[in-house]
Amino acid sequence: MLSPARFGLAAAFLLVLRLPAPAPVSAARPIVAGKPAPSEATATARWLAAQNTWGVVRSIAYLVGHSLIPAHIFLSTISSDLNGAPFGNVVSYSDGLPGEGHGIPYFYLTTLDPTARDALEDERTSFTLSEFPLGTCGKIDPENPTCSKLTLTGKLKLVDLQSSEADLAKSALFTKHPEMKDWPKNHHFKIFKLEIENIFLIDWFGGPKPISPSQYLEFGRNQQSVMSS
Amino acid sequence: MLSPARFGLAAAFLLVLRLPAPAPVSAARPIVAGKPAPSEATATARWLAAQNTWGVVRSIAYLVGHSLIPAHIFLSTISSDLNGAPFGNVVSYSDGLPGEGHGIPYFYLTTLDPTARDALEDERTSFTLSEFPLGTCGKIDPENPTCSKLTLTGKLKLVDLQSSEADLAKSALFTKHPEMKDWPKNHHFKIFKLEIENIFLIDWFGGPKPISPSQYLEFGRNQQSVMSS
Repeated sequence: MLSPARFGLAAAFLLVLRLPAPAPVSAARPIVAGKPAPSEATATARWLAAQNTWGVVRSIAYLVGHSLIPAHIFLSTISSDLNGAPFGNVVSYSDGLPGEGHGIPYFYLTTLDPTARDALEDERTSFTLSEFPLGTCGKIDPENPTCSKLTLTGKLKLVDLQSSEADLAKSALFTKHPEMKDWPKNHHFKIFKLEIENIFLIDWFGGPKPISPSQYLEFGRNQQSVMSS
Repeated sequence: MLSPARFGLAAAFLLVLRLPAPAPVSAARPIVAGKPAPSEATATARWLAAQNTWGVVRSIAYLVGHSLIPAHIFLSTISSDLNGAPFGNVVSYSDGLPGEGHGIPYFYLTTLDPTARDALEDERTSFTLSEFPLGTCGKIDPENPTCSKLTLTGKLKLVDLQSSEADLAKSALFTKHPEMKDWPKNHHFKIFKLEIENIFLIDWFGGPKPISPSQYLEFGRNQQSVMSS
């Protein structure tokens, strides 16, 4: 059994929400094996209900792996400049070589920017992305729960530049973001990673899906086949 | 003179950063009056240096008014479910009827979702958007400072549904996000607004631009001409 969702109270958008008219987006929507067309609402609901944990994790892996090429997301930190207010910023990330993502997001940040400074003061961070810019949400509103949104919350940690993990992370980052190699040395960019503690995924009516970080990361070991699907 | 930037230490990406090869994106980049083509680096630097505060505010108004139609952004709150960790979520917003934005972002949120619950516990919130999905950043990386990013930090406040402001906000929201009108009544959606206290804009090398909320909002009174430029 799954552990209870951390957001037990959240059940945004129950099935009573009227679907908009069938969206003419099938052609633009990437094919996810087994997932019915967006216009087939009942079939989609049954498909989702029939998914086990791995199905849900697949949604996450799909978002993390495919979203926003070159992949960028929003990182929220606790602002040291603004007395602990939340601070959202736009950064690039990579979770692996193309088609070989392992699920752990890596970042290349300088402390000239507030996000890295914040994380060194208080590691608590969230990583947020939306399906909307992918173009696969069709004509529905970005806030509609059928347009997926994902928040990974955890700790943003420095990666030791002498470690083998740093070599892997650099390779993952520089392959997806080639200009990073040429960013100024005197800005002292460092590699950070998000240690994931909580996962919040909305990808349909009925509230966030319960999924643990270990389930997500274990799935990552076989993520390659999903990434290339 | 401008008041000092709140992020005085931040000076991400100085002019020493090598520009990538001239990006072949001029055709796709919306025309901003007086702004040189992206390939004309020196002219662009001079143009930026010559901009007064209103020029900087214009960049912000441009982003807020044009970004991501239908407009959606990332809101970061202090999570009540996760013991005060930052929590980023994807929501839709409107700052006015199309072409008539006043700069104050309004939202239509339900407390079934963590963001609204968080704000009712702790109003501190940040609003973040990226120029990248607009397609006007060309081939540069989303983290490159020449691809604009904007964070408005402040307090997320409930708007009294009986007020004239609520009528304006509803009109602004429902015009840009028509399906909101049909969202389920029993989810008790409420109107929130961001009271802006700090502005963080990166739109070029040299760190964030100093701009006060009042400068931003005063400019909003004449924003219409910019929005339609």
